[in-house]
Amino acid sequence: MLAVTILGNNSALPMHDRHPTSQLVTNGEQLFLVDCGEGTQIQMNRFKIRRSRIQHIFISHLHGDHYFGLAGLLNSYSLTNRQDPLHLYAPPPLQEILELQFRAASAQLSYPIHFHALGDPQVLVDERKISVESFPVNHRIPCWGFRFREKTKPRKIDPRLAYQAGIPPEYFSRLKEGEDYVAKDGRVIPNEEVTKPSARAVSYAYCADTRYDENILPYILDADLVYHEATYLDDQREKAIERFHSTASQAATIALKANASRLLLGHFSSKYEVLDVFREEAEKVFPEVEVCREGVTYIVK
Amino acid sequence: MLAVTILGNNSALPMHDRHPTSQLVTNGEQLFLVDCGEGTQIQMNRFKIRRSRIQHIFISHLHGDHYFGLAGLLNSYSLTNRQDPLHLYAPPPLQEILELQFRAASAQLSYPIHFHALGDPQVLVDERKISVESFPVNHRIPCWGFRFREKTKPRKIDPRLAYQAGIPPEYFSRLKEGEDYVAKDGRVIPNEEVTKPSARAVSYAYCADTRYDENILPYILDADLVYHEATYLDDQREKAIERFHSTASQAATIALKANASRLLLGHFSSKYEVLDVFREEAEKVFPEVEVCREGVTYIVK
Repeated sequence: MLAVTILGNNSALPMHDRHPTSQLVTNGEQLFLVDCGEGTQIQMNRFKIRRSRIQHIFISHLHGDHYFGLAGLLNSYSLTNRQDPLHLYAPPPLQEILELQFRAASAQLSYPIHFHALGDPQVLVDERKISVESFPVNHRIPCWGFRFREKTKPRKIDPRLAYQAGIPPEYFSRLKEGEDYVAKDGRVIPNEEVTKPSARAVSYAYCADTRYDENILPYILDADLVYHEATYLDDQREKAIERFHSTASQAATIALKANASRLLLGHFSSKYEVLDVFREEAEKVFPEVEVCREGVTYIVK
Repeated sequence: MLAVTILGNNSALPMHDRHPTSQLVTNGEQLFLVDCGEGTQIQMNRFKIRRSRIQHIFISHLHGDHYFGLAGLLNSYSLTNRQDPLHLYAPPPLQEILELQFRAASAQLSYPIHFHALGDPQVLVDERKISVESFPVNHRIPCWGFRFREKTKPRKIDPRLAYQAGIPPEYFSRLKEGEDYVAKDGRVIPNEEVTKPSARAVSYAYCADTRYDENILPYILDADLVYHEATYLDDQREKAIERFHSTASQAATIALKANASRLLLGHFSSKYEVLDVFREEAEKVFPEVEVCREGVTYIVK
């Protein structure tokens, strides 16, 4: 099951007990951290996140509200004697910033960090159950979005029916892949007679900080859940353009054109104390809208 | 009035709803920030600190739990369009770290930062009502303590008595400095007949992260309030030495030998959930002990 837990839903200036951007994408036992604003490790304590399970961290861009919590988290891993390697996908200058900070502290981390510089769109993670791709978005400085895709799941075998059909167990892995069974005597057992499809593989697109830009559509097409920033409401559209951000209505238009199933809004300006207005504005364009709330987990379905 | 407000009292690993080191020293309307661990600006929101009044920030050393909140605070000042210059006193490498971070963000701050590199013991601030000096402490990397001294306050004139004695108002500024009045006819009015002493000027010594080291005594001698770290209790003395930290008992010994009036303990290891044990251990050596609590203001008297 793919899901997204919000650790911070605010834009740069922390206010109204809202925190700068950070999200956890979970896929079963695997945790992926997406952005890491100041206070992320404290939010992890608050929401009882099992941070040791994080093997991959993605940083969309180098505005502080998306990464000023990272160095503290990396330090804390070392203080708790982490051994597992950590993969960090981030804009190239972050490597030098972290190295300078570690050097100034004479720090020797207890675990290795593998730094992967973001660049052209690419597959960053390709594992048995999930893949993660990067894609460019339109912000004042280089900025990337990330798409998480569950892998197609194997079909489920009905062992009783397979046994009755005389299919030997060593053939089961091919049944899971959807093959028909052909017996030695030429008899064919169609796959769907002994298997059932698994739950559909779903995908999640995180669009980071971005202006309204239809160039991102190919990268987020048909996503089951799209996270799109909505720093402002539409009466601040000029300000949104000027600051390379989006409005709730623009985010909804992107979700609509991307043929997304659901839209998750975040990165709210501190000028808004109440968040329901973002949902209300977006719903006029696209019906399935959720507003990021800190500590809440949104299941991708 | 000199006072200290605690924003973070924990050592590096945030836990038990305690935060990494940060303190505000207040002197009337002036606010001085001492260290700025991750989440400091969020703590400022929580405790309704008027952060715009901070003109001087002191960073003791470059372990992350003492400065990872700084870049976020500096950014937030710019987002709220601060104009006042900010003076930053810090270990030299911090300048390069901040510059790299600002460059990566293409950030143009709305206000100037004056960076003052810490080095030999020196007077960092010398203003009408207060001075601040730096001094070296004994830590794994270069680390400084800071001593805040109220200036000697002018004597208070009793205007009725001064008028009866025939002292012209243009002489009052010299009365405040303690001079006697000499009339044109040679008559002398002793200063203490028309003035009263003001409250005694007090001082506060912040000893940052340090091993037990009597070399710091000359710098903190006779302080009305000494902040000394107590990362551990005395049963962990070996660990304290190895990690360049102190125990509660060692902190109390320093306060005693410095002839301090009062001791404030902080920088507690996350392994301790309850803090009273630090006070209890220290009181066996030195009677006037307080344990830093976040959000609490300690008046220097």
